[in-house]
Amino acid sequence: MNKNEIPYKIYLEESELPKQWYNIRSDMKNKPAPLLNPATLKPMTKEELGVVFCDELVKQELDDTTAFIDIPEEITSFYKMYRPAPLVRAYFLEEKLQTPAKIYYKFEGNNTSGSHKLNSAIAQAYYAKKQGLKGVTTETGAGQWGTALSMACSYFDLDCQVYMVKVSYEQKPFRREVMKTYGASVTPSPSEFTEVGRKILAEHPGTGGSLGCAISEAVEVALGKDGYKYVLGSVLNQVLLHQSIIGLEAKAAMDKYDIRPDIIIGCAGGGSNLGGLMAPFIREKLRGEKDYQFIAIEPASCPSITRGVYAYDFCDTGKVCPLSKMYTLGSGFMPSPNHAGGLRYHGMNSVLSQLFEDKLIEARSVGQTEVFEAAELFARVEGTLPAPESAHAIKGAIDEALKCKETGEEKTILFGLTGTGYFDMKAYEKFHNGEMTDYVPSDEELSQSFNSIIGYNNPNLK
Amino acid sequence: MNKNEIPYKIYLEESELPKQWYNIRSDMKNKPAPLLNPATLKPMTKEELGVVFCDELVKQELDDTTAFIDIPEEITSFYKMYRPAPLVRAYFLEEKLQTPAKIYYKFEGNNTSGSHKLNSAIAQAYYAKKQGLKGVTTETGAGQWGTALSMACSYFDLDCQVYMVKVSYEQKPFRREVMKTYGASVTPSPSEFTEVGRKILAEHPGTGGSLGCAISEAVEVALGKDGYKYVLGSVLNQVLLHQSIIGLEAKAAMDKYDIRPDIIIGCAGGGSNLGGLMAPFIREKLRGEKDYQFIAIEPASCPSITRGVYAYDFCDTGKVCPLSKMYTLGSGFMPSPNHAGGLRYHGMNSVLSQLFEDKLIEARSVGQTEVFEAAELFARVEGTLPAPESAHAIKGAIDEALKCKETGEEKTILFGLTGTGYFDMKAYEKFHNGEMTDYVPSDEELSQSFNSIIGYNNPNLK
Repeated sequence: MNKNEIPYKIYLEESELPKQWYNIRSDMKNKPAPLLNPATLKPMTKEELGVVFCDELVKQELDDTTAFIDIPEEITSFYKMYRPAPLVRAYFLEEKLQTPAKIYYKFEGNNTSGSHKLNSAIAQAYYAKKQGLKGVTTETGAGQWGTALSMACSYFDLDCQVYMVKVSYEQKPFRREVMKTYGASVTPSPSEFTEVGRKILAEHPGTGGSLGCAISEAVEVALGKDGYKYVLGSVLNQVLLHQSIIGLEAKAAMDKYDIRPDIIIGCAGGGSNLGGLMAPFIREKLRGEKDYQFIAIEPASCPSITRGVYAYDFCDTGKVCPLSKMYTLGSGFMPSPNHAGGLRYHGMNSVLSQLFEDKLIEARSVGQTEVFEAAELFARVEGTLPAPESAHAIKGAIDEALKCKETGEEKTILFGLTGTGYFDMKAYEKFHNGEMTDYVPSDEELSQSFNSIIGYNNPNLK
Repeated sequence: MNKNEIPYKIYLEESELPKQWYNIRSDMKNKPAPLLNPATLKPMTKEELGVVFCDELVKQELDDTTAFIDIPEEITSFYKMYRPAPLVRAYFLEEKLQTPAKIYYKFEGNNTSGSHKLNSAIAQAYYAKKQGLKGVTTETGAGQWGTALSMACSYFDLDCQVYMVKVSYEQKPFRREVMKTYGASVTPSPSEFTEVGRKILAEHPGTGGSLGCAISEAVEVALGKDGYKYVLGSVLNQVLLHQSIIGLEAKAAMDKYDIRPDIIIGCAGGGSNLGGLMAPFIREKLRGEKDYQFIAIEPASCPSITRGVYAYDFCDTGKVCPLSKMYTLGSGFMPSPNHAGGLRYHGMNSVLSQLFEDKLIEARSVGQTEVFEAAELFARVEGTLPAPESAHAIKGAIDEALKCKETGEEKTILFGLTGTGYFDMKAYEKFHNGEMTDYVPSDEELSQSFNSIIGYNNPNLK
């Protein structure tokens, strides 16, 4: 295909948009291990999960056989507000790198929430509404998920209560105001409004909070409030399912122009965006139809796949959630305060963990400073200011493109540009002022952290 | 045409993108009055303007006869980075308002500079590069223009020196960091680096600066530096010309689906976005081919068209620039500190001023609080968080749509959504906290301001 025939941006027509999500688990020979009840160490039942989550979402969470699930019309209708997301040929970046590689990125930042999180937020809000709920509770750290959920709840006229890690609440007032613009109530966590919040405040007066604490508060509020459930924006299999829209759209756009990626790259925190981007491609690999190279890029400061262990662990720091078998650094692991942006989750989605265990995907970790160098280069040549999270994927793509430059190979690279960095300028400022540091946890630090993992060295939890 | 046949978003194909800009002046019977040299009160010559501006831009500034001007290939190539901008059918807004009106908006915020300003920034940077310059200087207030110019200069490897109003520099550190990300140097104005800056600092120690002062500093630096010229992001006719890409794209998208707008609405500060959006439509009106209603929406706190006078006045507060005949509140007029966002220019582009004088376009002013109400409503239903400036056009469109609801008319409304509000959350915060006020200048205040206008009551300057 002639270069001139492929536009800079490929937008699918409305009629070409995916009408079903794809469930990776359905094609996996080795299914991801089930969630366990930490009290009984038995698989979580539908009923147990239903106490916290919406019924339909529980069904999706537990379903590892259905391949394609219809996207409800109410959701496809909302999708039209900001989808299709463009598939962009990074001509400017290729030229800058002088690489024979062809680089494409699927850009998910063209909506006010600024990231791909909206894809799952709208689905979760829809099922909550359908179940007749009054509202949902959630936590947010950097704020992308909280913003996305606020938008989604506003659309369905659902109450949205966000517990925002206190230090982010104070340092990111603009994120908070965006959520308020969409009608959400935003509470700095820990708060005086929950038992767990009061307890933490009593033990640690003046604490800036943590994601684990915010989860615990959001769950407590949902459990105690009639007509409310708790929702979560990453890590879960249901989220991976909803995010498959990213990959399905990307593949449809590529198929339309007869483009076949050799390498598919995504940043990985909880794993939802990479899982979504790779979904239809890994399907072909799992079915032995085609082969692709998949690379998860994670921060060197929070290297759950590249340096973690594959074991049952709590999904949350507060240890109120079920156990998941995954690559984990230990639920008590906290990335260094120098770490900017998201991708700070201690574990990894169980589907991606199993795929990595089975050597179907690869993983690499990258340093913070080189990530911001890649981010700035990308912003200058491609015009979009990436979120720090997304910049991990950019760094991965640039590295692969430079390898092609050395070898002369004309590989086709697809990566996920999950969001924009408009609310991350504090981190860019640090970078510009030379105040950014690269912290990498020591082996000793990690092995200490591993010892707190419930399934580590426990023969009953393999 | 059936509703279902018109997609939510219309993206033109690359082959359908405009290849020429359109110059409104060419079809005007009453041409806008020429810029005057304030020393001689004679029309500014090419040579005089060439001291400050790039040669090709001077040519465009003075050309009121050529209808279509080819867009250089280097610029159309850059345009591909963020254009086409989508034409969006505001189905969600229509439903919310329960109006029979059909509402469309041309969205120009899908690029990191966050606004339409990039359309002219890239053109001005290109001509500067073509002339062999080393760099350009400019001023920025809220920061949209500075950001856009930084991006454009980065693309052409031009040095970009931005003088940013000190109070904005301090209150909008993130805007500043975005500009730095694109390699621009950003100096708070007034600074110690220019004669005029030092003078102002001596007279007003601790001043937060003003746009007028920043212009004066940027001009002084350009004049004193070999290989540098000064560039300006609004008000000038060359800017209107570059911004015609907005309207040309919008019209091509509408023509493709056989949509004909009845009303075209834009916010108006210096006039560049409205002038750009309306360009191909006013062409048909000027040529007697079709009729449209054009409405400029301006803030009640800075009502240059609705309450200003049509007279020769300085283009800048510092009185270092030429005189322009325009609707003006007086070059010394400063909107109240309560006024949020842009649209704070005391005058109006001379083309729009003449069109208004000839009753070819209308103008309305709207209050700040109702503008933010419209902004929040729009964000909630359409998903895009608008810049406060853009929200003026939203307010205008909603008002017209509600009129249609009363009368039952199915009018088609097109408005310009010039940008996103990610860097304006301080203003949204004020709005959420009930701290936003509506200041409207009194008649007395305005008539005092008019008396300082050089061409007001001066028979030699009619």
